[in-house]
Amino acid sequence: MANIMTSWVDIPPGSDFPLENLPYGIFSSSRKSKRAGVALGDQIIDLYALNRLGYLKDLGFKSSVFRNDDLNDFIDLGKPVHKKLRQRLQYLFRSGARKIKQHASEILIDQKNAKMHMPIQVGDYTDFYSSKEHATNVGKMFRDPKNALLPNWKHMPVGYHGRSSSIYVSGTPIYRPYGQRMPAGAKKPVFGPSSRLDIELEMGTVIRGNTVQGQRLSTGDAESYIFGFVLFNDWSARDIQKWEYVPLGPFLGKNFASTISPWIVTLEALEPFRVAGPRQIPKVLPYLSYEGNKNFDIDLEVGLQSRNGDETIICQSNFRYMYWNVNQQIAHHTVNGCSLRTGDIMASGTISGKTKNSFGSMLELSWAGKNPIALKDGMIRTFLEDYDIVTLRGNASKEGLRIGFGEAKGQVLPAP
Amino acid sequence: MANIMTSWVDIPPGSDFPLENLPYGIFSSSRKSKRAGVALGDQIIDLYALNRLGYLKDLGFKSSVFRNDDLNDFIDLGKPVHKKLRQRLQYLFRSGARKIKQHASEILIDQKNAKMHMPIQVGDYTDFYSSKEHATNVGKMFRDPKNALLPNWKHMPVGYHGRSSSIYVSGTPIYRPYGQRMPAGAKKPVFGPSSRLDIELEMGTVIRGNTVQGQRLSTGDAESYIFGFVLFNDWSARDIQKWEYVPLGPFLGKNFASTISPWIVTLEALEPFRVAGPRQIPKVLPYLSYEGNKNFDIDLEVGLQSRNGDETIICQSNFRYMYWNVNQQIAHHTVNGCSLRTGDIMASGTISGKTKNSFGSMLELSWAGKNPIALKDGMIRTFLEDYDIVTLRGNASKEGLRIGFGEAKGQVLPAP
Repeated sequence: MANIMTSWVDIPPGSDFPLENLPYGIFSSSRKSKRAGVALGDQIIDLYALNRLGYLKDLGFKSSVFRNDDLNDFIDLGKPVHKKLRQRLQYLFRSGARKIKQHASEILIDQKNAKMHMPIQVGDYTDFYSSKEHATNVGKMFRDPKNALLPNWKHMPVGYHGRSSSIYVSGTPIYRPYGQRMPAGAKKPVFGPSSRLDIELEMGTVIRGNTVQGQRLSTGDAESYIFGFVLFNDWSARDIQKWEYVPLGPFLGKNFASTISPWIVTLEALEPFRVAGPRQIPKVLPYLSYEGNKNFDIDLEVGLQSRNGDETIICQSNFRYMYWNVNQQIAHHTVNGCSLRTGDIMASGTISGKTKNSFGSMLELSWAGKNPIALKDGMIRTFLEDYDIVTLRGNASKEGLRIGFGEAKGQVLPAP
Repeated sequence: MANIMTSWVDIPPGSDFPLENLPYGIFSSSRKSKRAGVALGDQIIDLYALNRLGYLKDLGFKSSVFRNDDLNDFIDLGKPVHKKLRQRLQYLFRSGARKIKQHASEILIDQKNAKMHMPIQVGDYTDFYSSKEHATNVGKMFRDPKNALLPNWKHMPVGYHGRSSSIYVSGTPIYRPYGQRMPAGAKKPVFGPSSRLDIELEMGTVIRGNTVQGQRLSTGDAESYIFGFVLFNDWSARDIQKWEYVPLGPFLGKNFASTISPWIVTLEALEPFRVAGPRQIPKVLPYLSYEGNKNFDIDLEVGLQSRNGDETIICQSNFRYMYWNVNQQIAHHTVNGCSLRTGDIMASGTISGKTKNSFGSMLELSWAGKNPIALKDGMIRTFLEDYDIVTLRGNASKEGLRIGFGEAKGQVLPAP
């Protein structure tokens, strides 16, 4: 690991956002309209102001690319541009930089005083199902415990399309959804608020670049189409899902809401944390084979806080557990010529590990409601109650370097 | 039926586009950049030019709403505005209108000289499964002939999310997709171009209006969220679909391409063609109940033309066969608080009738390949061959009035 960079901006110990991270987001404040920013310590670097003051002049950015409702145009500029900006920011904000300090009040804004927005316009959102442990757990609970994984699962990263319109940024309250469910033994479905509201701990890959109909990306090509990652909570109403999902897959049990963290952590920032993925047996088809380390060692956790209670960490998992990596997901997604667009999100599917405390959904943690989850404040949960607050967090750490993701948080409100 | 309107623009007998239709699209030509137009006979009314010449002045349109890559901003203006424009166009282009004729060459363009584009930016695309005959046919072929309909089917309009990025306008060639399939009796999947490429005859509903998280639309509310309809070909690779779709639904078997007709026929134009839908037994849950006629009597057909051959009409169906109507689809889609946006498409699912020649897919027409379909030129088909041209057409007709949809056409090209 390289030495930890120091900055003239105060970066508190344990911050998710050192000078090596520099994740992108869209923020506004009482004095600033929506614009692009980069998190640094407890501050946000206002990219629009930085550019206007001339610090990025030679990089040739149009002003509008930073004063925008989303980062899509910026992401579209491509990796070489992102790399140059990253280097420039590390140069400008390193310890010892002098001239720029006079503009600190124009360039920096305290995260406490900013409102974060959806960082991207999501064209299409795909949800994969790429954790073997999660797919096995679900298979055991709902299908055959002896053949928990379906025949296709080890041959392809199974996935389905989700809803783009209902992806919300961290902090947005989530209404408990109404829907149909078929109670055990009943003859006809009943209607009402979901009684099995759940979370799914996932990571979302943000796509950079547009492909055309018929264009296939190899697992190697895929690398340059990954802009970065966000935390992703795929809220799920298990009772609605169970009744509706045969034969066309999850629909209303999922599409009421998903929550993402506001900061997109770039692939570049995560380079030091590449690790090998699980061995894939049987051998995958050639279009899914890959070289190099495509998994990432990112610690993940889920906090659950009841109304007026303390938060309990109900799950500790790691992104490295993914059986199918993001490159394979992209190669699979495009192997039929399906086109991608900048701003698309590919979510990983629930990231569960081998141990019980690493299961990434309450469905698994409570084993379909059979084993209630104990909270610190003495309460128990099988699924979510109204006013519960769920917070996803993640960070990659080693040798003093910590690349964090901030939070993807949402409070459950009663069905309206 | 009211008297048929006559126009000073020549409208050939049997035209899809009389003065009572006035469907919206986006076109360009060698001299005109992308803009909004309305089909009339063999011509296109250039709405941007019409507005610039002052004919719509009192309606207060911004110029940019018609000189745009898509109709979303126009659709967002709302039903009262659309109604006023419809009345104005019928007034300006009726027989006897005088002054406007002097501007004919600026306002009208021959459809032969125009290129049509995607009329809308599609935020989210949902595919339903709302024909009882289609769902029954598929259930008989792949599951249990005695219990062909799954338990949930009569209780809700089953649907799933499709891919927005790969919806193409009529005329766009479609590449045969590559993918995995598991041959009968094989131990491991094989990879290659799909050998069971199929079509699905559907209608697509174009949504007008945005809803917020938690907002539920009743079947009555739904009416004002329907801007209009297009023909929709949901190209499907049956071999890929069959291997991948359990448990999360169709994905790569569908998302390589869908084709829509370029002209959006408005709800207003279709008012005379409302009919009652099938009786729904068992009784649906209250949120799915509705009043009035919500089905539409629209004749639909599928033409298949082999390379250098003549076209054969392989399917004649009707939109009125839908078990679940569009209002019910919208009420169901939003019952959990899922948000809608202007430009969303909800496709009906394959529209099959009771008779064999009304089945809306080759899967059904050839009964999973067992009964080849005879073409006029002596060839036979079970599924599509390279260079086949598929054309969907539709029209609502009675008492001399014909509201047509034009075509949704696509040629199959070999896997690239």
